[in-house]
Amino acid sequence: MKQLDMLYEGKAKKIFRTDQAGQLLMEYKDSLTAFNALKKGEFAGKGRLNCQISTLLFKILQKNGVHHHWIETLNESSMLVHETRIIPLEVVVRNRVAGSLAKKLNMTEGHVLPGPLVEFYYKSDQLGDPFVSDDQIVALGWADEELLKQLKRRALQVNRVLSEVFEKINLTLVDFKTEFGHDLNHQILLADEISPDCMRLWDTRTGEKLDKDRFRRDLGGVEEAYQEVYLRLSGGGFL
Amino acid sequence: MKQLDMLYEGKAKKIFRTDQAGQLLMEYKDSLTAFNALKKGEFAGKGRLNCQISTLLFKILQKNGVHHHWIETLNESSMLVHETRIIPLEVVVRNRVAGSLAKKLNMTEGHVLPGPLVEFYYKSDQLGDPFVSDDQIVALGWADEELLKQLKRRALQVNRVLSEVFEKINLTLVDFKTEFGHDLNHQILLADEISPDCMRLWDTRTGEKLDKDRFRRDLGGVEEAYQEVYLRLSGGGFL
Repeated sequence: MKQLDMLYEGKAKKIFRTDQAGQLLMEYKDSLTAFNALKKGEFAGKGRLNCQISTLLFKILQKNGVHHHWIETLNESSMLVHETRIIPLEVVVRNRVAGSLAKKLNMTEGHVLPGPLVEFYYKSDQLGDPFVSDDQIVALGWADEELLKQLKRRALQVNRVLSEVFEKINLTLVDFKTEFGHDLNHQILLADEISPDCMRLWDTRTGEKLDKDRFRRDLGGVEEAYQEVYLRLSGGGFL
Repeated sequence: MKQLDMLYEGKAKKIFRTDQAGQLLMEYKDSLTAFNALKKGEFAGKGRLNCQISTLLFKILQKNGVHHHWIETLNESSMLVHETRIIPLEVVVRNRVAGSLAKKLNMTEGHVLPGPLVEFYYKSDQLGDPFVSDDQIVALGWADEELLKQLKRRALQVNRVLSEVFEKINLTLVDFKTEFGHDLNHQILLADEISPDCMRLWDTRTGEKLDKDRFRRDLGGVEEAYQEVYLRLSGGGFL
């Protein structure tokens, strides 16, 4: 496999075309951003850690029947993935109230929801990824009702697998954000990365945050937190 | 019927208990507010106009089988209504993109939606009435799925009747906000008022705004616009 031209550079990843039809190379960067890139930072090795954490989680998800874009991990910070046409919705699953939802409703972070809650945000950096309802999505033509149902079903499936995995290593999966895409055969695949950059993970016993909130909220120990997640995951005997 | 103590004073209305069980008196005020009451104004006769416009529209809705809280209009600015326990959701129906939705999606005002779009906002002055999805409403326990389905069905029914009425008097119903409540027999009733304070009405031919946006956006001629709506409605031969 040969790495060809760069198709896209995002906040935390670069995507390259390859000489294999329908396969892309995803390279994880060391940069960290928050608040729609208004806050920027980085730490050496973040890309590597996120690539390794994502690899483990993609493998675990695969074992549990989740269809995703990961094919294989090529080196410390790059993976080969199936090419997808990304559905322009960030799909968020929340098990507890935190972050923007806590702020919007003036609720205490950590409030346990009666069941997992799926939210959609319209993917647009320019608009600041606005929160949208199902009916808005359908009215604006970004997805139809059937696709939304599929996305919810799949996001909840991912949530079930990840919640159970993290619970076993004493981490509470508070929420996570993901994306889905259609592959060349029109199958829906879980895309993007699955790392502490896009989820909230709290130590079940101490409540300590082991995710990007350490960066967002200037709590320090960002690198140590990501390492801790990787260590617990890789030592969890999941594979 | 005797007017008793005031139960509530809102931005545009006062509600009084009466000596009739299950019946309240709703008095329309001359004040105008916008942006969660950050902007305030008033014009003499606004309460009277809104009470008369609401009266006409409640009568027309009644003729069309819409269940609502209006019983009778007592004088120029007061009506008797059935007591309801208000469901804490502002129900918005949009036929065209305007206002907050245009801003959120950076769209031109006036874009015609493929069909009417229902949106819910959680009623809370303190939180600024945040936009919420169906799944958030259910997860937070403000309504169940069945009630949301009912609210949508009824809001769309109101939209059908009002759109047709306004079309006949050369007004385009761009969007409107309403509320629903449960009466003492647990029936769902359309509540609140139905006036240019809570809808966008554009002259079909000139595009001129004949609603509260004249106040919100300092366009002048607020009183004249409300009067024009009243005149067209009362001369429309709908009753």
